Amino acid sequence: MMKEKLWKHISAVRTQSPLVQNITNYVVMNNTANALLAVGASPIMAHALREIDEMVALCNALVVNIGTLDHAWSDAMLQAARRARALKKPWILDPVGAGATSYRDQVLSRLIALRPTAIRGNASEILALANANQSRTKGVDSTAQSSEALDAAKALHKLTGAVVGISGETDFIVSDQPVIQIHNGTPLMTRVTGLGCSATALIGAFLAVTENSAEAVAAATALLSIAGELAEKNSNGPGSLQMNLLDKLYNLTEDEFKNTLRIEA
Amino acid sequence: MMKEKLWKHISAVRTQSPLVQNITNYVVMNNTANALLAVGASPIMAHALREIDEMVALCNALVVNIGTLDHAWSDAMLQAARRARALKKPWILDPVGAGATSYRDQVLSRLIALRPTAIRGNASEILALANANQSRTKGVDSTAQSSEALDAAKALHKLTGAVVGISGETDFIVSDQPVIQIHNGTPLMTRVTGLGCSATALIGAFLAVTENSAEAVAAATALLSIAGELAEKNSNGPGSLQMNLLDKLYNLTEDEFKNTLRIEA
Amino acid sequence: MMKEKLWKHISAVRTQSPLVQNITNYVVMNNTANALLAVGASPIMAHALREIDEMVALCNALVVNIGTLDHAWSDAMLQAARRARALKKPWILDPVGAGATSYRDQVLSRLIALRPTAIRGNASEILALANANQSRTKGVDSTAQSSEALDAAKALHKLTGAVVGISGETDFIVSDQPVIQIHNGTPLMTRVTGLGCSATALIGAFLAVTENSAEAVAAATALLSIAGELAEKNSNGPGSLQMNLLDKLYNLTEDEFKNTLRIEA
Repeated sequence: MMKEKLWKHISAVRTQSPLVQNITNYVVMNNTANALLAVGASPIMAHALREIDEMVALCNALVVNIGTLDHAWSDAMLQAARRARALKKPWILDPVGAGATSYRDQVLSRLIALRPTAIRGNASEILALANANQSRTKGVDSTAQSSEALDAAKALHKLTGAVVGISGETDFIVSDQPVIQIHNGTPLMTRVTGLGCSATALIGAFLAVTENSAEAVAAATALLSIAGELAEKNSNGPGSLQMNLLDKLYNLTEDEFKNTLRIEA
Repeated sequence: MMKEKLWKHISAVRTQSPLVQNITNYVVMNNTANALLAVGASPIMAHALREIDEMVALCNALVVNIGTLDHAWSDAMLQAARRARALKKPWILDPVGAGATSYRDQVLSRLIALRPTAIRGNASEILALANANQSRTKGVDSTAQSSEALDAAKALHKLTGAVVGISGETDFIVSDQPVIQIHNGTPLMTRVTGLGCSATALIGAFLAVTENSAEAVAAATALLSIAGELAEKNSNGPGSLQMNLLDKLYNLTEDEFKNTLRIEA
Repeated sequence: MMKEKLWKHISAVRTQSPLVQNITNYVVMNNTANALLAVGASPIMAHALREIDEMVALCNALVVNIGTLDHAWSDAMLQAARRARALKKPWILDPVGAGATSYRDQVLSRLIALRPTAIRGNASEILALANANQSRTKGVDSTAQSSEALDAAKALHKLTGAVVGISGETDFIVSDQPVIQIHNGTPLMTRVTGLGCSATALIGAFLAVTENSAEAVAAATALLSIAGELAEKNSNGPGSLQMNLLDKLYNLTEDEFKNTLRIEA
């Protein structure tokens, strides 16, 4: 069943060690590289336009995260996405701060048009992204719960074909399969910067080892949430949580995973 | 009294969760985002000129840190500071490496002219900044003690109106109120990169919750120094100090704060 | 003997606290700054072309690491290397991702021509670098063991005069002195991002305190590997390893160093 399938993907990442190209933000580069290494993947961080084509060709998946966006980087992101699409390699978009500025929304519209395999964001970002790309009235509620963004995610999936992951207290994965809900994690994870970005990076690795993109998003999401939940037991705050989470991504056992996972699919 | 006031500001940050826009250096982005999250604030890291105006409008305070300065970033810093000033939002300047190169001093002069609400640096930086902006003979002593920079801080405050924080074994806060001295912290903190930058980021959060800028600088300075001092008790070196410090910023109690604070005001 | 000499250099770094200028990649800036601080050195991270000349003049050694290379940064790297050479200051090159793209190889050729004092990379990178600069058939084996790269390192040393360090299960240091082999470290270190880059940064600090560049490379390499090996004993995974390693770089004793070091020279 689903628990079995997701664990199989976790094992596949550990065994196959997919090469994941990241064009991501400055804040989280270190964390997301460490998260990828901890689950057994191989991160590459490179963004120069002059080498994008060669880098994407080397990799098994591409991660694009617009956190600390600027002009030079958006060109690289667009070219990398184009190249990934041409080479039929999976790529995932993290629309950090969607809706916060018109500049972000413009760049996101261009990225969305390149049809990411998956999109992962929080409820506000998914709402903003769906609204901006449907010419509907923009009404981003920064306190939006992930369940409120479900309709937006469905519209976004319809528009782009991408599997859409909404992070929150409950994580939702929207695709052409029934919506998957994951009820793991802990509120303390919101006090550590970049764990959403780490989720996106891990999804990148999982997209590289399975054709079933919804399962890839679910496996990576579950893995990170469970690692955070188990890590919290030995943590005194966000500093030790970040450290213990990396340890747990690395040493999580099949039993721990299956006994902790709370999933509806 | 002062202990009471400062704790009130710490509680206010935890409750109000101010949104703090950071244009800071690559080295410390992760740490400072985590420090802001740990005290209950919400960090934003964005620097693209195209979105600066919208981002500053969204935020409750702005942090400008010139650590890994370059041409593109200084334009964004200047525009963000202009915008913060126009919108009457508090902003703080961290003059990293002031006096080290003429380029830094030129950019700093332009930033200073935009009248930061607060400035925080070590003794050498405050001395360099004051000297460079008074056309006096430049005599930066990199081994300067924070007490030696007191006169420079007073001149700088007179020139700019900014509250000036000098970090060191004793921290000084210079404003139109009596000089505040804080005697907390531990030498091991100097072996962790970016704790000065973290202090600056936290000050940004505190400037957002009180009109009394001197108290804001004092509260953030005291919080970080006390967290470091208490964190050291469980630390074997700079690695565990950084982790324990983030935990302590998050879980510091009122009793711990008041019993540990050594302040003269 | 060698153990004695290497420990002498470790003590010299702790005592002299050399100022090390780093133009390095975004992923590891925080780690490498912390590694330098932990061993007693003083890191500077700055890359603006406008201040490179002044910054290099201030420093005791220069570290150039091309991890997240792009156009603007390569100009700064080249100018910094030129300046270091003109001022007869030691500088070290970390050819991250050599052989992965033609762009990297072009920039590396220009950097190599500026005669670094030392070069440190993994076996694949050293092979790629040697091949690209000898117009031989390029045959990069990403699974290359460090021993296979020995011939390449010797050719590279002959071509450039640089001491060449090859990182791997066994670390090799190639110079005009007999090859040094170090058999320390632990496989878990490969699951932490940027430890190779940290090795390079530490070498920068050690080049500043001794004329014997081969010993400088050996001392820094041994220090990092031993710190990692000892740190692992208290670690549950890569998260805690990174933290414990920084602690150990800071608190390593002479006895620990000499009793753990496994060296052939």
